[in-house]
Amino acid sequence: MSATKKQRTSPPYELLYHPSIPGRGEFIRLAFEAAGASYTDVANDKDDYKTVQRICTDTDSLTSGDSNPPVFSPPALRVPGAGKDGNALIISQTPNILAYLGEKLGLNGSEDGDDSEKWHVAQVALTALDLNNEVHDTHHPIAVAKYYEDQKDEALKKAADVRKSRLPKFLGYFDRVLKFNRENGGGEGKYLVGSGLTYADTTVWQVLDGCMFAFPKELEARKKEFPDVLDTFYNSIKEEKGLKEYLASKRRLPYSMGVFRHYPELDRQ
Amino acid sequence: MSATKKQRTSPPYELLYHPSIPGRGEFIRLAFEAAGASYTDVANDKDDYKTVQRICTDTDSLTSGDSNPPVFSPPALRVPGAGKDGNALIISQTPNILAYLGEKLGLNGSEDGDDSEKWHVAQVALTALDLNNEVHDTHHPIAVAKYYEDQKDEALKKAADVRKSRLPKFLGYFDRVLKFNRENGGGEGKYLVGSGLTYADTTVWQVLDGCMFAFPKELEARKKEFPDVLDTFYNSIKEEKGLKEYLASKRRLPYSMGVFRHYPELDRQ
Repeated sequence: MSATKKQRTSPPYELLYHPSIPGRGEFIRLAFEAAGASYTDVANDKDDYKTVQRICTDTDSLTSGDSNPPVFSPPALRVPGAGKDGNALIISQTPNILAYLGEKLGLNGSEDGDDSEKWHVAQVALTALDLNNEVHDTHHPIAVAKYYEDQKDEALKKAADVRKSRLPKFLGYFDRVLKFNRENGGGEGKYLVGSGLTYADTTVWQVLDGCMFAFPKELEARKKEFPDVLDTFYNSIKEEKGLKEYLASKRRLPYSMGVFRHYPELDRQ
Repeated sequence: MSATKKQRTSPPYELLYHPSIPGRGEFIRLAFEAAGASYTDVANDKDDYKTVQRICTDTDSLTSGDSNPPVFSPPALRVPGAGKDGNALIISQTPNILAYLGEKLGLNGSEDGDDSEKWHVAQVALTALDLNNEVHDTHHPIAVAKYYEDQKDEALKKAADVRKSRLPKFLGYFDRVLKFNRENGGGEGKYLVGSGLTYADTTVWQVLDGCMFAFPKELEARKKEFPDVLDTFYNSIKEEKGLKEYLASKRRLPYSMGVFRHYPELDRQ
Protein backbone atom coordinates (compact mmCIF):
# COMPACT_ATOMS: atom_id res chain seq x y z
CA MET A 1 0.00 0.00 0.00
CA SER A 2 1.35 3.42 -0.79
CA ALA A 3 2.04 5.98 1.90
CA THR A 4 -0.60 8.21 0.33
CA LYS A 5 -3.30 5.60 0.64
CA LYS A 6 -2.40 4.96 4.28
CA GLN A 7 -2.32 8.66 5.02
CA ARG A 8 -6.00 9.08 4.14
CA THR A 9 -7.02 6.60 6.79
CA SER A 10 -4.32 7.25 9.39
CA PRO A 11 -5.36 7.90 12.98
CA PRO A 12 -4.40 11.17 14.70
CA TYR A 13 -0.90 10.06 15.71
CA GLU A 14 0.64 11.83 18.70
CA LEU A 15 4.38 12.08 19.23
CA LEU A 16 5.34 12.49 22.88
CA TYR A 17 8.80 13.94 23.27
CA HIS A 18 10.73 16.79 24.87
CA PRO A 19 10.14 20.22 23.30
CA SER A 20 12.69 22.32 21.40
CA ILE A 21 15.28 19.66 20.51
CA PRO A 22 15.40 17.18 17.62
CA GLY A 23 16.78 14.37 19.86
CA ARG A 24 15.40 10.88 19.48
CA GLY A 25 12.02 12.35 18.56
CA GLU A 26 13.50 13.36 15.23
CA PHE A 27 13.65 9.76 14.00
CA ILE A 28 9.90 9.56 14.50
CA ARG A 29 9.23 12.97 12.93
CA LEU A 30 11.20 12.02 9.82
CA ALA A 31 9.14 8.84 9.39
CA PHE A 32 5.90 10.82 9.55
CA GLU A 33 7.17 13.51 7.22
CA ALA A 34 8.56 11.04 4.68
CA ALA A 35 5.22 9.21 4.58
CA GLY A 36 3.19 12.42 4.42
CA ALA A 37 1.28 11.33 7.52
CA SER A 38 -0.28 13.92 9.77
CA TYR A 39 0.77 13.88 13.43
CA THR A 40 0.78 16.07 16.49
CA ASP A 41 4.09 16.77 18.16
CA VAL A 42 2.45 17.34 21.53
CA ALA A 43 5.16 19.35 23.30
CA ASN A 44 5.95 21.55 20.29
CA ASP A 45 2.61 21.87 18.46
CA LYS A 46 0.36 22.10 21.49
CA ASP A 47 2.87 23.50 23.95
CA ASP A 48 1.75 20.68 26.23
CA TYR A 49 4.86 19.26 27.87
CA LYS A 50 2.81 18.29 30.91
CA THR A 51 1.07 15.56 28.94
CA VAL A 52 4.43 14.26 27.75
CA GLN A 53 5.70 14.18 31.32
CA ARG A 54 2.57 12.51 32.64
CA ILE A 55 2.81 9.76 30.02
CA CYS A 56 6.59 9.34 29.76
CA THR A 57 8.40 10.37 32.93
CA ASP A 58 6.07 9.94 35.91
CA THR A 59 7.88 7.27 37.91
CA ASP A 60 5.11 7.16 40.49
CA SER A 61 2.60 5.86 37.98
CA LEU A 62 1.95 2.24 37.08
CA THR A 63 0.50 3.21 33.70
CA SER A 64 1.23 5.55 30.83
CA GLY A 65 -2.53 5.90 30.47
CA ASP A 66 -5.35 4.32 28.43
CA SER A 67 -4.64 0.84 29.88
CA ASN A 68 -1.03 0.80 28.71
CA PRO A 69 2.01 -0.20 30.79
CA PRO A 70 4.45 2.51 31.89
CA VAL A 71 7.00 4.11 29.58
CA PHE A 72 10.68 4.20 30.57
CA SER A 73 11.49 7.44 28.78
CA PRO A 74 10.46 9.50 25.76
CA PRO A 75 9.91 9.33 22.84
CA ALA A 76 6.52 7.61 22.99
CA LEU A 77 3.78 7.31 20.42
CA ARG A 78 0.07 7.54 21.21
CA VAL A 79 -2.40 6.14 18.70
CA PRO A 80 -6.06 6.73 19.62
CA GLY A 81 -8.20 3.66 19.11
CA ALA A 82 -5.33 1.28 18.33
CA GLY A 83 -4.96 -0.31 21.77
CA LYS A 84 -6.87 -2.76 23.94
CA ASP A 85 -10.68 -2.49 23.90
CA GLY A 86 -10.65 0.56 21.66
CA ASN A 87 -8.37 2.53 23.95
CA ALA A 88 -5.33 4.41 22.72
CA LEU A 89 -2.15 2.42 22.19
CA ILE A 90 0.90 3.94 23.82
CA ILE A 91 4.30 2.54 22.89
CA SER A 92 7.84 3.64 23.56
CA GLN A 93 11.45 2.93 22.53
CA THR A 94 12.55 4.58 19.28
CA PRO A 95 13.21 1.36 17.28
CA ASN A 96 9.86 -0.03 18.42
CA ILE A 97 7.96 3.09 17.37
CA LEU A 98 9.76 3.03 14.03
CA ALA A 99 8.87 -0.64 13.48
CA TYR A 100 5.24 0.15 14.26
CA LEU A 101 5.10 3.18 11.97
CA GLY A 102 7.14 1.37 9.32
CA GLU A 103 4.33 -1.17 9.11
CA LYS A 104 1.48 1.34 9.25
CA LEU A 105 2.98 3.98 6.96
CA GLY A 106 4.54 1.65 4.41
CA LEU A 107 8.13 2.53 5.31
CA ASN A 108 9.52 -0.93 5.96
CA GLY A 109 10.15 -2.16 2.47
CA SER A 110 8.31 -4.37 0.06
CA GLU A 111 6.33 -7.32 1.34
CA ASP A 112 6.17 -9.03 -2.02
CA GLY A 113 6.77 -12.75 -1.60
CA ASP A 114 8.47 -12.65 1.79
CA ASP A 115 8.98 -10.17 4.61
CA SER A 116 12.78 -10.17 4.57
CA GLU A 117 13.02 -6.44 3.77
CA LYS A 118 11.16 -5.55 6.95
CA TRP A 119 13.77 -7.32 9.09
CA HIS A 120 16.65 -5.83 7.12
CA VAL A 121 15.18 -2.34 7.47
CA ALA A 122 14.96 -2.86 11.25
CA GLN A 123 18.53 -4.16 11.53
CA VAL A 124 19.97 -1.16 9.66
CA ALA A 125 17.90 1.34 11.68
CA LEU A 126 18.90 -0.33 14.96
CA THR A 127 22.54 -0.09 13.95
CA ALA A 128 22.16 3.63 13.18
CA LEU A 129 20.51 4.11 16.58
CA ASP A 130 23.49 2.35 18.20
CA LEU A 131 25.75 4.94 16.58
CA ASN A 132 23.38 7.64 17.84
CA ASN A 133 23.89 6.33 21.39
CA GLU A 134 27.65 6.17 21.01
CA VAL A 135 27.74 9.77 19.77
CA HIS A 136 25.64 10.80 22.76
CA ASP A 137 28.21 9.15 25.00
CA THR A 138 31.05 11.20 23.48
CA HIS A 139 29.85 14.15 25.58
CA HIS A 140 28.43 12.07 28.43
CA PRO A 141 30.69 9.02 28.83
CA ILE A 142 30.37 8.77 32.61
CA ALA A 143 26.95 9.97 33.75
CA VAL A 144 23.95 11.18 31.78
CA ALA A 145 22.75 13.22 34.76
CA LYS A 146 26.00 15.18 35.16
CA TYR A 147 27.19 18.20 33.19
CA TYR A 148 29.53 17.79 30.23
CA GLU A 149 32.00 20.05 32.00
CA ASP A 150 32.22 17.55 34.85
CA GLN A 151 33.22 14.70 32.52
CA LYS A 152 35.18 16.60 29.90
CA ASP A 153 38.48 14.74 30.33
CA GLU A 154 36.72 11.45 29.78
CA ALA A 155 34.68 12.95 26.93
CA LEU A 156 37.86 13.90 25.07
CA LYS A 157 39.04 10.29 25.22
CA LYS A 158 35.66 8.82 24.33
CA ALA A 159 35.15 11.20 21.41
CA ALA A 160 38.60 10.39 20.03
CA ASP A 161 37.78 6.69 20.07
CA VAL A 162 34.34 7.13 18.51
CA ARG A 163 35.74 9.32 15.73
CA LYS A 164 38.78 7.17 15.00
CA SER A 165 37.44 3.64 15.49
CA ARG A 166 33.69 3.50 15.76
CA LEU A 167 32.55 6.05 13.19
CA PRO A 168 34.52 4.50 10.29
CA LYS A 169 33.24 1.07 11.30
CA PHE A 170 29.63 2.27 11.10
CA LEU A 171 30.20 4.31 7.92
CA GLY A 172 31.87 1.29 6.32
CA TYR A 173 28.84 -0.80 7.22
CA PHE A 174 26.32 1.66 5.77
CA ASP A 175 28.53 1.86 2.69
CA ARG A 176 28.41 -1.92 2.23
CA VAL A 177 24.64 -1.99 2.79
CA LEU A 178 24.19 0.68 0.09
CA LYS A 179 26.46 -1.14 -2.35
CA PHE A 180 24.76 -4.47 -1.69
CA ASN A 181 21.37 -2.90 -2.32
CA ARG A 182 22.52 -1.16 -5.50
CA GLU A 183 23.62 -4.54 -6.84
CA ASN A 184 20.69 -6.59 -5.54
CA GLY A 185 17.72 -4.55 -4.47
CA GLY A 186 17.30 -1.87 -7.07
CA GLY A 187 18.15 0.95 -4.68
CA GLU A 188 20.34 2.66 -7.36
CA GLY A 189 22.64 3.82 -4.57
CA LYS A 190 19.86 6.01 -3.18
CA TYR A 191 18.23 3.60 -0.75
CA LEU A 192 19.62 1.23 1.86
CA VAL A 193 17.05 -1.56 1.60
CA GLY A 194 14.93 -2.44 -1.42
CA SER A 195 13.79 -0.15 -4.21
CA GLY A 196 12.13 2.66 -2.25
CA LEU A 197 12.46 4.86 0.82
CA THR A 198 12.26 3.10 4.20
CA TYR A 199 12.78 4.19 7.79
CA ALA A 200 16.29 2.72 7.52
CA ASP A 201 17.06 5.60 5.14
CA THR A 202 15.53 8.33 7.29
CA THR A 203 17.18 6.95 10.45
CA VAL A 204 20.67 6.58 9.00
CA TRP A 205 20.29 10.00 7.35
CA GLN A 206 19.42 11.66 10.66
CA VAL A 207 22.42 10.11 12.42
CA LEU A 208 24.72 11.23 9.60
CA ASP A 209 23.24 14.72 9.72
CA GLY A 210 23.71 14.84 13.48
CA CYS A 211 27.31 13.66 13.17
CA MET A 212 27.98 16.41 10.61
CA PHE A 213 26.71 18.91 13.17
CA ALA A 214 28.67 17.42 16.07
CA PHE A 215 31.93 16.66 14.23
CA PRO A 216 32.02 18.80 11.07
CA LYS A 217 35.77 18.44 10.49
CA GLU A 218 35.74 14.69 11.07
CA LEU A 219 32.84 14.11 8.69
CA GLU A 220 34.30 16.40 6.02
CA ALA A 221 37.50 14.37 6.13
CA ARG A 222 35.60 11.07 5.97
CA LYS A 223 33.68 12.18 2.88
CA LYS A 224 36.59 11.20 0.64
CA GLU A 225 36.62 7.73 2.18
CA PHE A 226 32.84 7.16 2.09
CA PRO A 227 31.46 9.28 -0.76
CA ASP A 228 28.53 6.93 -1.45
CA VAL A 229 27.20 7.36 2.08
CA LEU A 230 28.21 10.91 2.97
CA ASP A 231 27.63 12.47 -0.44
CA THR A 232 25.36 10.47 -2.79
CA PHE A 233 23.05 8.91 -0.21
CA TYR A 234 23.04 11.82 2.24
CA ASN A 235 22.22 14.41 -0.41
CA SER A 236 19.63 12.37 -2.27
CA ILE A 237 17.61 11.52 0.85
CA LYS A 238 17.42 15.26 1.63
CA GLU A 239 15.59 15.74 -1.65
CA GLU A 240 12.93 13.07 -1.04
CA LYS A 241 9.34 14.18 -1.25
CA GLY A 242 8.10 15.16 2.20
CA LEU A 243 11.58 15.36 3.66
CA LYS A 244 12.70 18.26 1.47
CA GLU A 245 9.70 20.37 2.51
CA TYR A 246 10.08 19.39 6.15
CA LEU A 247 13.79 20.18 6.31
CA ALA A 248 13.09 23.66 4.94
CA SER A 249 10.25 24.25 7.42
CA LYS A 250 10.24 25.61 10.94
CA ARG A 251 9.14 22.20 12.21
CA ARG A 252 12.73 21.03 11.71
CA LEU A 253 14.32 22.05 15.00
CA PRO A 254 17.95 23.16 15.20
CA TYR A 255 20.47 21.02 17.06
CA SER A 256 21.45 22.43 20.41
CA MET A 257 22.07 20.58 23.68
CA GLY A 258 20.52 17.22 22.85
CA VAL A 259 22.09 14.01 21.55
CA PHE A 260 24.13 15.84 18.92
CA ARG A 261 26.19 18.71 20.32
CA HIS A 262 28.98 20.65 18.74
CA TYR A 263 31.91 20.96 21.12
CA PRO A 264 34.85 21.93 18.87
CA GLU A 265 37.32 20.23 21.23
CA LEU A 266 35.65 16.85 20.62
CA ASP A 267 35.97 17.14 16.84
CA ARG A 268 39.02 16.24 14.74
CA GLN A 269 41.73 18.87 15.39
CA MET B 1 -0.57 -20.97 18.30
CA SER B 2 1.34 -22.70 21.06
CA ALA B 3 5.09 -22.91 21.13
CA THR B 4 4.79 -26.69 20.90
CA LYS B 5 2.81 -26.56 17.72
CA LYS B 6 5.28 -24.13 16.17
CA GLN B 7 8.17 -26.29 17.25
CA ARG B 8 7.01 -29.22 15.13
CA THR B 9 7.17 -27.16 11.98
CA SER B 10 10.08 -24.89 12.87
CA PRO B 11 12.94 -24.58 10.38
CA PRO B 12 16.49 -25.51 11.42
CA TYR B 13 17.31 -22.18 13.07
CA GLU B 14 20.98 -21.26 13.28
CA LEU B 15 22.34 -18.86 15.90
CA LEU B 16 25.54 -17.14 14.81
CA TYR B 17 27.51 -15.81 17.74
CA HIS B 18 30.91 -15.94 19.41
CA PRO B 19 31.75 -19.23 21.14
CA SER B 20 32.20 -19.79 24.88
CA ILE B 21 30.44 -16.68 26.27
CA PRO B 22 26.75 -16.04 26.96
CA GLY B 23 26.96 -12.43 25.69
CA ARG B 24 24.20 -11.06 23.51
CA GLY B 25 23.68 -14.52 22.06
CA GLU B 26 22.15 -15.57 25.36
CA PHE B 27 19.01 -13.51 24.76
CA ILE B 28 18.43 -15.53 21.60
CA ARG B 29 19.24 -18.85 23.27
CA LEU B 30 16.75 -18.18 26.05
CA ALA B 31 13.99 -17.48 23.52
CA PHE B 32 14.65 -20.80 21.77
CA GLU B 33 14.86 -22.72 25.02
CA ALA B 34 11.72 -21.15 26.49
CA ALA B 35 9.78 -22.05 23.35
CA GLY B 36 11.21 -25.54 23.14
CA ALA B 37 12.44 -24.82 19.61
CA SER B 38 15.40 -26.68 18.22
CA TYR B 39 18.34 -24.60 17.00
CA THR B 40 22.01 -24.89 16.21
CA ASP B 41 24.42 -22.65 18.06
CA VAL B 42 26.94 -22.77 15.23
CA ALA B 43 30.12 -21.75 17.07
CA ASN B 44 29.42 -23.91 20.13
CA ASP B 45 27.52 -26.92 18.76
CA LYS B 46 29.43 -27.34 15.52
CA ASP B 47 32.71 -25.76 16.61
CA ASP B 48 32.40 -23.66 13.46
CA TYR B 49 33.41 -20.12 14.35
CA LYS B 50 34.64 -19.58 10.79
CA THR B 51 31.07 -19.57 9.52
CA VAL B 52 30.09 -17.04 12.18
CA GLN B 53 32.99 -14.81 11.16
CA ARG B 54 32.25 -15.13 7.45
CA ILE B 55 28.62 -14.12 7.99
CA CYS B 56 28.99 -11.58 10.79
CA THR B 57 32.40 -9.92 10.83
CA ASP B 58 33.86 -9.95 7.30
CA THR B 59 34.07 -6.23 6.57
CA ASP B 60 35.33 -6.89 3.04
CA SER B 61 32.10 -8.55 2.02
CA LEU B 62 29.01 -6.85 0.64
CA THR B 63 26.78 -9.71 1.74
CA SER B 64 26.25 -11.95 4.75
CA GLY B 65 25.37 -14.71 2.27
CA ASP B 66 22.25 -16.18 0.65
CA SER B 67 21.32 -12.81 -0.95
CA ASN B 68 21.19 -10.98 2.38
CA PRO B 69 22.78 -7.60 3.14
CA PRO B 70 25.84 -7.48 5.41
CA VAL B 71 25.67 -7.84 9.18
CA PHE B 72 27.27 -5.21 11.44
CA SER B 73 28.13 -7.59 14.26
CA PRO B 74 26.95 -10.79 15.93
CA PRO B 75 24.54 -12.15 17.00
CA ALA B 76 22.83 -13.05 13.74
CA LEU B 77 20.11 -15.56 12.96
CA ARG B 78 20.04 -17.73 9.85
CA VAL B 79 16.76 -19.31 8.82
CA PRO B 80 17.02 -21.64 5.81
CA GLY B 81 14.25 -21.11 3.28
CA ALA B 82 12.79 -17.99 4.93
CA GLY B 83 14.45 -15.35 2.75
CA LYS B 84 14.10 -14.06 -0.80
CA ASP B 85 13.43 -16.65 -3.52
CA GLY B 86 13.65 -19.55 -1.11
CA ASN B 87 17.11 -18.57 0.12
CA ALA B 88 18.03 -18.42 3.77
CA LEU B 89 17.08 -15.28 5.67
CA ILE B 90 19.94 -13.78 7.67
CA ILE B 91 19.09 -11.04 10.17
CA SER B 92 21.05 -9.31 12.90
CA GLN B 93 20.61 -6.97 15.88
CA THR B 94 19.47 -8.64 19.10
CA PRO B 95 16.10 -6.82 19.43
CA ASN B 96 15.35 -7.54 15.78
CA ILE B 97 16.11 -11.25 16.11
CA LEU B 98 13.95 -11.37 19.25
CA ALA B 99 11.06 -9.65 17.47
CA TYR B 100 11.35 -12.17 14.63
CA LEU B 101 11.49 -15.18 16.93
CA GLY B 102 8.82 -13.70 19.18
CA GLU B 103 6.48 -13.84 16.22
CA LYS B 104 7.53 -17.28 14.98
CA LEU B 105 7.79 -19.00 18.37
CA GLY B 106 4.76 -17.42 20.01
CA LEU B 107 6.77 -15.42 22.55
CA ASN B 108 5.39 -11.94 21.90
CA GLY B 109 2.14 -12.06 23.78
CA SER B 110 -1.44 -12.63 22.86
CA GLU B 111 -2.75 -11.39 19.53
CA ASP B 112 -6.37 -11.63 20.59
CA GLY B 113 -8.23 -8.57 19.36
CA ASP B 114 -5.29 -6.26 18.86
CA ASP B 115 -1.52 -6.53 18.67
CA SER B 116 -0.72 -4.17 21.53
CA GLU B 117 1.07 -6.85 23.59
CA LYS B 118 3.59 -7.41 20.81
CA TRP B 119 4.66 -3.75 20.93
CA HIS B 120 4.75 -3.71 24.72
CA VAL B 121 6.87 -6.86 24.78
CA ALA B 122 9.31 -5.19 22.37
CA GLN B 123 9.50 -1.97 24.40
CA VAL B 124 10.30 -3.80 27.63
CA ALA B 125 12.91 -6.02 25.95
CA LEU B 126 14.54 -3.00 24.28
CA THR B 127 14.74 -1.28 27.65
CA ALA B 128 16.41 -4.32 29.21
CA LEU B 129 18.88 -4.38 26.32
CA ASP B 130 19.65 -0.70 27.00
CA LEU B 131 20.56 -1.65 30.56
CA ASN B 132 22.66 -4.49 29.14
CA ASN B 133 24.61 -1.92 27.10
CA GLU B 134 25.05 0.40 30.06
CA VAL B 135 26.41 -2.45 32.18
CA HIS B 136 28.82 -3.32 29.38
CA ASP B 137 30.04 0.27 29.45
CA THR B 138 30.80 0.07 33.18
CA HIS B 139 33.96 -1.86 32.31
CA HIS B 140 34.49 -0.25 28.89
CA PRO B 141 33.37 3.39 29.20
CA ILE B 142 35.97 4.82 26.81
CA ALA B 143 36.83 2.30 24.10
CA VAL B 144 35.47 -1.16 23.37
CA ALA B 145 38.71 -2.13 21.64
CA LYS B 146 40.95 -1.28 24.62
CA TYR B 147 41.63 -3.32 27.75
CA TYR B 148 39.66 -2.74 30.93
CA GLU B 149 42.93 -2.04 32.70
CA ASP B 150 43.54 0.90 30.37
CA GLN B 151 40.24 2.56 31.27
CA LYS B 152 39.91 1.48 34.88
CA ASP B 153 39.78 4.97 36.39
CA GLU B 154 36.90 5.90 34.11
CA ALA B 155 35.28 2.50 34.71
CA LEU B 156 35.19 3.13 38.45
CA LYS B 157 33.29 6.38 37.87
CA LYS B 158 30.96 4.92 35.25
CA ALA B 159 30.17 1.87 37.37
CA ALA B 160 29.37 4.05 40.38
CA ASP B 161 26.89 6.06 38.33
CA VAL B 162 25.26 3.00 36.76
CA ARG B 163 24.88 1.32 40.16
CA LYS B 164 23.63 4.40 42.00
CA SER B 165 21.48 6.14 39.38
CA ARG B 166 20.77 4.00 36.37
CA LEU B 167 20.19 0.56 37.89
CA PRO B 168 17.49 1.72 40.35
CA LYS B 169 15.82 3.63 37.52
CA PHE B 170 15.64 0.48 35.40
CA LEU B 171 14.65 -1.77 38.32
CA GLY B 172 11.94 0.70 39.28
CA TYR B 173 10.64 0.57 35.73
CA PHE B 174 10.55 -3.23 35.57
CA ASP B 175 8.84 -3.18 38.96
CA ARG B 176 6.11 -0.87 37.67
CA VAL B 177 5.66 -2.96 34.52
CA LEU B 178 5.23 -6.08 36.67
CA LYS B 179 2.75 -4.39 38.99
CA PHE B 180 0.79 -2.93 36.08
CA ASN B 181 0.56 -6.37 34.49
CA ARG B 182 -0.48 -8.04 37.73
CA GLU B 183 -3.37 -5.58 37.97
CA ASN B 184 -4.30 -5.52 34.29
CA GLY B 185 -2.85 -8.35 32.25
CA GLY B 186 -3.21 -11.43 34.39
CA GLY B 187 0.52 -11.93 34.81
CA GLU B 188 0.05 -12.71 38.55
CA GLY B 189 3.36 -11.00 39.21
CA LYS B 190 5.16 -13.68 37.24
CA TYR B 191 5.11 -12.13 33.79
CA LEU B 192 5.89 -8.65 32.50
CA VAL B 193 3.39 -8.47 29.65
CA GLY B 194 0.13 -10.37 29.36
CA SER B 195 -0.78 -13.70 30.89
CA GLY B 196 2.08 -15.88 29.68
CA LEU B 197 5.82 -16.00 29.10
CA THR B 198 7.20 -13.63 26.44
CA TYR B 199 10.67 -12.67 25.31
CA ALA B 200 10.32 -9.56 27.54
CA ASP B 201 10.52 -11.95 30.50
CA THR B 202 13.50 -13.93 29.24
CA THR B 203 15.36 -10.76 28.23
CA VAL B 204 14.80 -8.87 31.49
CA TRP B 205 15.63 -12.07 33.40
CA GLN B 206 18.96 -12.47 31.62
CA VAL B 207 19.95 -8.86 32.30
CA LEU B 208 19.05 -9.24 35.99
CA ASP B 209 21.00 -12.49 36.17
CA GLY B 210 24.00 -10.83 34.52
CA CYS B 211 23.81 -7.90 36.93
CA MET B 212 23.76 -10.33 39.86
CA PHE B 213 26.98 -11.83 38.51
CA ALA B 214 28.63 -8.48 37.83
CA PHE B 215 27.51 -6.62 40.96
CA PRO B 216 26.50 -9.23 43.56
CA LYS B 217 26.66 -6.85 46.53
CA GLU B 218 24.74 -4.12 44.77
CA LEU B 219 21.96 -6.45 43.66
CA GLU B 220 21.72 -8.11 47.05
CA ALA B 221 21.21 -4.69 48.62
CA ARG B 222 18.63 -3.72 46.01
CA LYS B 223 16.57 -6.86 46.67
CA LYS B 224 14.93 -5.20 49.68
CA GLU B 225 13.91 -2.27 47.52
CA PHE B 226 12.67 -4.29 44.54
CA PRO B 227 11.55 -7.70 45.87
CA ASP B 228 8.93 -8.21 43.14
CA VAL B 229 11.54 -7.98 40.40
CA LEU B 230 14.65 -9.41 42.05
CA ASP B 231 12.95 -12.12 44.06
CA THR B 232 9.44 -13.10 42.87
CA PHE B 233 9.90 -12.50 39.15
CA TYR B 234 13.55 -13.54 38.94
CA ASN B 235 13.02 -16.83 40.74
CA SER B 236 9.79 -17.78 39.04
CA ILE B 237 11.15 -17.27 35.52
CA LYS B 238 14.03 -19.62 36.38
CA GLU B 239 11.48 -22.37 36.97
CA GLU B 240 9.68 -21.99 33.63
CA LYS B 241 9.43 -25.08 31.48
CA GLY B 242 12.34 -25.19 29.08
CA LEU B 243 14.33 -22.59 30.96
CA LYS B 244 14.77 -24.70 34.09
CA GLU B 245 16.20 -27.60 32.11
CA TYR B 246 18.39 -25.29 30.04
CA LEU B 247 19.83 -23.46 33.03
CA ALA B 248 20.83 -26.77 34.59
CA SER B 249 22.44 -27.97 31.37
CA LYS B 250 25.92 -27.56 29.96
CA ARG B 251 24.50 -25.44 27.15
CA ARG B 252 24.16 -22.59 29.65
CA LEU B 253 27.62 -21.04 29.46
CA PRO B 254 29.27 -19.42 32.48
CA TYR B 255 29.85 -15.68 32.53
CA SER B 256 33.47 -14.74 32.00
CA MET B 257 34.88 -11.84 29.98
CA GLY B 258 31.82 -10.86 28.00
CA VAL B 259 29.17 -8.19 28.61
CA PHE B 260 28.79 -9.16 32.28
CA ARG B 261 32.09 -9.26 34.16
CA HIS B 262 32.74 -9.42 37.85
CA TYR B 263 35.35 -6.90 38.88
CA PRO B 264 34.92 -6.56 42.66
CA GLU B 265 36.15 -2.97 42.58
CA LEU B 266 33.22 -1.96 40.36
CA ASP B 267 30.63 -3.40 42.75
CA ARG B 268 29.16 -1.69 45.82
CA GLN B 269 31.90 -1.50 48.49
